[in-house]
Amino acid sequence: MITEIEAAQAGTITDAVRRVAASEGRDPGELSRSVAEGRVVIMKRGDVSLGIGDGLSTKVNANIGTSPACCNPEDEVEKARIAESLGAHTISDLSMGGDITLMRSRILAATALPLTTVPTYQAVAETGLEHLSDEDLFGNLRRQAEEGISSFVLHLVSGKLLDGVRRSPRIMGVVSKGGSMMAAHMVLRGCENPYLARFDELLDILHRHDIVLSLGNTMRSGCIHDARDRPQVMEMRENVALARRAHEAGVQVILEGVGGHVHPRRIPGYISDYKKKSGFPLFVAGPLPTDIAMGNDHIAGCVGAALASGAGADYLCYITPAEHMGLPTPAQVREGLAAFLIAAHIGDLIKYGRDDRDEALAIRRAALDWKGQAALALDHEKACIANPDGDPCTMCGSFCALRIMQEFCSGPDGRDTVERSR
Amino acid sequence: MITEIEAAQAGTITDAVRRVAASEGRDPGELSRSVAEGRVVIMKRGDVSLGIGDGLSTKVNANIGTSPACCNPEDEVEKARIAESLGAHTISDLSMGGDITLMRSRILAATALPLTTVPTYQAVAETGLEHLSDEDLFGNLRRQAEEGISSFVLHLVSGKLLDGVRRSPRIMGVVSKGGSMMAAHMVLRGCENPYLARFDELLDILHRHDIVLSLGNTMRSGCIHDARDRPQVMEMRENVALARRAHEAGVQVILEGVGGHVHPRRIPGYISDYKKKSGFPLFVAGPLPTDIAMGNDHIAGCVGAALASGAGADYLCYITPAEHMGLPTPAQVREGLAAFLIAAHIGDLIKYGRDDRDEALAIRRAALDWKGQAALALDHEKACIANPDGDPCTMCGSFCALRIMQEFCSGPDGRDTVERSR
Repeated sequence: MITEIEAAQAGTITDAVRRVAASEGRDPGELSRSVAEGRVVIMKRGDVSLGIGDGLSTKVNANIGTSPACCNPEDEVEKARIAESLGAHTISDLSMGGDITLMRSRILAATALPLTTVPTYQAVAETGLEHLSDEDLFGNLRRQAEEGISSFVLHLVSGKLLDGVRRSPRIMGVVSKGGSMMAAHMVLRGCENPYLARFDELLDILHRHDIVLSLGNTMRSGCIHDARDRPQVMEMRENVALARRAHEAGVQVILEGVGGHVHPRRIPGYISDYKKKSGFPLFVAGPLPTDIAMGNDHIAGCVGAALASGAGADYLCYITPAEHMGLPTPAQVREGLAAFLIAAHIGDLIKYGRDDRDEALAIRRAALDWKGQAALALDHEKACIANPDGDPCTMCGSFCALRIMQEFCSGPDGRDTVERSR
Repeated sequence: MITEIEAAQAGTITDAVRRVAASEGRDPGELSRSVAEGRVVIMKRGDVSLGIGDGLSTKVNANIGTSPACCNPEDEVEKARIAESLGAHTISDLSMGGDITLMRSRILAATALPLTTVPTYQAVAETGLEHLSDEDLFGNLRRQAEEGISSFVLHLVSGKLLDGVRRSPRIMGVVSKGGSMMAAHMVLRGCENPYLARFDELLDILHRHDIVLSLGNTMRSGCIHDARDRPQVMEMRENVALARRAHEAGVQVILEGVGGHVHPRRIPGYISDYKKKSGFPLFVAGPLPTDIAMGNDHIAGCVGAALASGAGADYLCYITPAEHMGLPTPAQVREGLAAFLIAAHIGDLIKYGRDDRDEALAIRRAALDWKGQAALALDHEKACIANPDGDPCTMCGSFCALRIMQEFCSGPDGRDTVERSR
């Protein structure tokens, strides 16, 4: 198979690139050059093509999936549907409970969005950490690759890096589930990370299906105290080197970084440093700018993610109100995603300055056009609840400032403020 | 009466200053100098003293109150109680429906927090815009001043400023309710703003009770397109001049500014400019960094408010999910306030760097101590829902990264990651 990178490097503008260029309002030739250089990846599934990276709008991923402690497949299908209908760009199925292969096929059947998995999870869930062999990991990887998954998150944490984090004065240690599994496997077997040891074989599997490699952020910080310490800096360096190898092999690649908890002062600089040092699309989980927003982490995460995308992050992994507390309900998936779609939009306002949709909604708002406003709102469904009959809203009733200004302050002395504006 | 400013200027450290200094961990003498210079105000009610301004933690105000279109006094009392118990620093009663004086007395009876009002609202609600006289405005002002209100928001928009906004290419015009009422009054009577024309008399009323004057932000922008235009710049200049006159008269004063909707790129610079030009405490409504988050404006507002307080705003007025749609329910008051308490904390992390409470919670989190985490969370009630029995959370169940690292990656090769950290 010729991958998107290889096609772009050969000067071919693929259908996928054309579709992304059209939806983002970009020149296909320029976009193709970005793909060739690895600054943009194209995630594909069937007819759906999604561009992530430099110059494109910020994308949002919604994590769903069963856990050993909470396994309701119907709920996960509902979460997938909610995520797609509210506007998620990708879904990650992180299932570790029940029939994992079946769960994945049901999610694939329920939505058209590109799907990401962390293949390690299934291997560990089905085999157990103690009995896991390298072949279990690779066998599972090969099987999932046949299913039409768009992207794999893999934790390529090295033994050297694990030594580093053990010696660091972290409060939270390693909070990445996939990373901790690889660490346990390496300790139990006394071996190097098999994904690293057999990296070329790994790339070969990804290349065969043009699956995007997302380099997991094992060293992400579990609290703001731990952010940007030596292990994180080391991981960034190692992952950038791995990303270059993947790119040279024609495999599309995304870096995960700056995820978890990061002091708000540090987020913009940390992100721009990452982008400067790599150029590959940057996928960020959160980040949470505070540790004390438990129960409302989607809101704190929205602040961190807006800062991150404003500084150059290309792709955000949402956080739900259930973060640090449990598996989210379908309603919590909706809440978390709504918050992160706002973050992505604010990030784009910072990155690109554009505010066409904001201005269009404001014009409808000035005209007290409730339906027009709702149609342009990010969360159309919630916005629709307001005033379906076009009455003044109950906040001010007859003392609506817009109406007072129209009634008393237009006319001979000055034309109607609202009408005049457009 | 000797006001806080006058006492401070005379070198007296008042009980109120001592209380604020103790709760904020500040030196009373230094704090008193800030009060003398107008950089900090002390809002008082009974034994409660609240400091707002330079070097103090960011404060959050919750707006409640009936409207002509939605008047359920029981709900408003409930909102006041919710706001106080969740951690609001002040409440503003913006009632315009039903028995407004009775509503205010019930709110005063239900909570101990400093209460703010916009006296114009009651005068207009009881007299009607068409029949309103200057004496109605001042009579109402004098009556409210006797009731133990801590702060008045007054819109001192000048005729010149109104001419300016009429000529500006705004989409939304004037969206401040209090400001639009003064505008209508001025147009109907063909007069200057009576609060301006009789400013010394106004200051005299405030001085008599040491009520904090909050200079309303009539020109706040109703959409990001309108932000920081000529009318806003003019209003800032006029309000800073009025604040200086108030301060010279011994009246404590707060500026409202940068409120409404502001493009996220502009928020930090706009705030620091305001602070540089005035030095008085800055009260910001929102700001919303986007117009399209209708239904989730508390979340978008949290991003704007975190940026604003991080850049120097001292006092935030919350936004609820009902913003642009109607009067909030008690549950929506809770949601809005929770979001803005997060914003204030993130703002303080940016302003001051401090993260003691974050670190304390992280240490409890690393120890999988659910109760300890919940006790330190901003929204204690929501955080308490998680895992009361101390089981691993349902997100990962038995595959909790913290547990995997403890079980497999501690021991001879490296001591327990969590234990070792403290």
